[in-house]
Amino acid sequence: MQIISTGNKEITIYDIARKLNISPATVSRGLNDHPAVNKETKKKIFSMAKEMGYRSNTFASNLRRQRTNTIGVIVPRLNSNFMSSVIAGMEKVANQAGYNLIISQSLETAKKEATNAQTMFNSRVDGLLVSLAYDTDNIDHFKDFLKKGIPVIFFDRVFNHKQCTGIVIDNIKAAQEVTAHLIGQGCRRIVHITGNLKRNVYADRLKGYKYALTDHNLALDPNLILETNLSVEAGVEAAEKILQMNPLPDGVFAANDACAVSCLQTLKQAGIAIPQDIAFAGFNNDPVSKVVEPNLTTVDYPGSEMGEVAAQNLINHLNGTANINNTNTIILRSELIIRESSLRHPEHI
Amino acid sequence: MQIISTGNKEITIYDIARKLNISPATVSRGLNDHPAVNKETKKKIFSMAKEMGYRSNTFASNLRRQRTNTIGVIVPRLNSNFMSSVIAGMEKVANQAGYNLIISQSLETAKKEATNAQTMFNSRVDGLLVSLAYDTDNIDHFKDFLKKGIPVIFFDRVFNHKQCTGIVIDNIKAAQEVTAHLIGQGCRRIVHITGNLKRNVYADRLKGYKYALTDHNLALDPNLILETNLSVEAGVEAAEKILQMNPLPDGVFAANDACAVSCLQTLKQAGIAIPQDIAFAGFNNDPVSKVVEPNLTTVDYPGSEMGEVAAQNLINHLNGTANINNTNTIILRSELIIRESSLRHPEHI
Repeated sequence: MQIISTGNKEITIYDIARKLNISPATVSRGLNDHPAVNKETKKKIFSMAKEMGYRSNTFASNLRRQRTNTIGVIVPRLNSNFMSSVIAGMEKVANQAGYNLIISQSLETAKKEATNAQTMFNSRVDGLLVSLAYDTDNIDHFKDFLKKGIPVIFFDRVFNHKQCTGIVIDNIKAAQEVTAHLIGQGCRRIVHITGNLKRNVYADRLKGYKYALTDHNLALDPNLILETNLSVEAGVEAAEKILQMNPLPDGVFAANDACAVSCLQTLKQAGIAIPQDIAFAGFNNDPVSKVVEPNLTTVDYPGSEMGEVAAQNLINHLNGTANINNTNTIILRSELIIRESSLRHPEHI
Repeated sequence: MQIISTGNKEITIYDIARKLNISPATVSRGLNDHPAVNKETKKKIFSMAKEMGYRSNTFASNLRRQRTNTIGVIVPRLNSNFMSSVIAGMEKVANQAGYNLIISQSLETAKKEATNAQTMFNSRVDGLLVSLAYDTDNIDHFKDFLKKGIPVIFFDRVFNHKQCTGIVIDNIKAAQEVTAHLIGQGCRRIVHITGNLKRNVYADRLKGYKYALTDHNLALDPNLILETNLSVEAGVEAAEKILQMNPLPDGVFAANDACAVSCLQTLKQAGIAIPQDIAFAGFNNDPVSKVVEPNLTTVDYPGSEMGEVAAQNLINHLNGTANINNTNTIILRSELIIRESSLRHPEHI
């Protein structure tokens, strides 16, 4: 065992500065994680301070903070297969790297999201992974993290801001493909069931729907766009609205599978033939899409991969092997999965 | 505004002892949360110490701990509808009482459960709600909490120990009812798909299955008991085993819905008529039980209520309005839900 000893003399920032050939002011700022000092220099200062046995309250607290090995995760709700897959992906990467996750739900409100952020901050998490609530308008509640240099990465429901890193799929393109597929199956009056349009995922899927109509020279009928909370109940209500439309639509594209399935089942019970009368598509490739009859056409959303990529980028940043500040957006691949609910002309695919 | 002042004099434990007419030793022990001092006296000591402006490191740290208003939740996995419902119930009660939840997954291993417990402890949670991992053999990893008087309540997957409070349903009785119902529908060779028998929930459901056979003078065939991890994949594998049985069984009772549904669908694809050839029942009343065709007979498991009761008991204990140390087990009601998957003789119900 090697013991680095300096006798009785307490190590000062001047000793560290001399060793590294930089100014004592830089050492002091570096130890206090001041933004004016670059990451590489900070790393050198920290590592030298540790080696020489430097002690101060701030340094000790920084060291302590570095050692929690805990990543905070804030999600809207834990009640979807998509979110379970994301968290499973995060756990996989975090476990391998020796990190532990603590998770909380915003329950779709910005207010609780802010409370959760504060709890995570007080729990001294090393970094934060966030998918935003329905009504979040700004990210002021993450400022404490950014000020302290604690990394925050957004996933799925991201904030459009040049200082933030976000991990998403190309929701516009995916929705455009779904809609084009329905049009290819002969649909001309396609209902789109969407969620809160403040969130990128739903706004982008709506855009994709509209762009596909444009691509195929179809007029946009605003009455066919139903804005809901995308719950199972919302699917039943959407079906009731659809049954009152005259003429009936000939396609439904819902922005998630849970809502698509309950809408499909309600229409089926009312005697509508799926896909002959109304062709159906959802989004997410939840297990229920393979249980419903007919099986649901949907978009495979790489939840587990999204969780892995988010956690890996955060951990690489924490370990200094990558810097998320250089990255704005990471786009993952998604895939259209065609099943019987939309297949009127099997020979066409 | 009323200011309680004692001039310049620092308050000591002797001042508190005199005011409460108890010994200074008791005050000191009380402030240090010593088990020899009863809860009521501790409460009086704390409240007087606070009122008189007493300060000490330990007391300050206890006060600080009391103020995190955070409840830790450790669950096996966040990937079931049941667990989402439990957590929704906990959030409802916690929000109303001004508490915030932080959640972590043990991923079914005792090792990670212990790491999570340590993270929660370091995050200074006010109390802990736990559903145990598959392979947890003892609860030594919660001793730090018990030593500090931080309450731990188990739910669903509980530990059989007289010092612990657990919240459960009567799994024996519920499984006995399911099995009796299948027997009433004419089933004589009933497969039971179960989980890890270390856990009370699966061991008890197996007992209920056996007791129902005994009640109806049916012999137990150990080959009909399939021990699995109850996943969707396990359901498919169980179906493959069932198809090789000679003679075929005439009933299947699976210990959860996810596994029941994938087993049912695999048998259906192999040409087995449900419920005519094989009648089916699951457990949990997951949404998928109402999507699969035929709809699945199951047990309504009050997840949301279980979460509410667990959180309420913990918060009442923290607020001093109830003491979980007096309670060993709280049993919630469950209900058999009969649907088409088991209904061979509709006139019989």
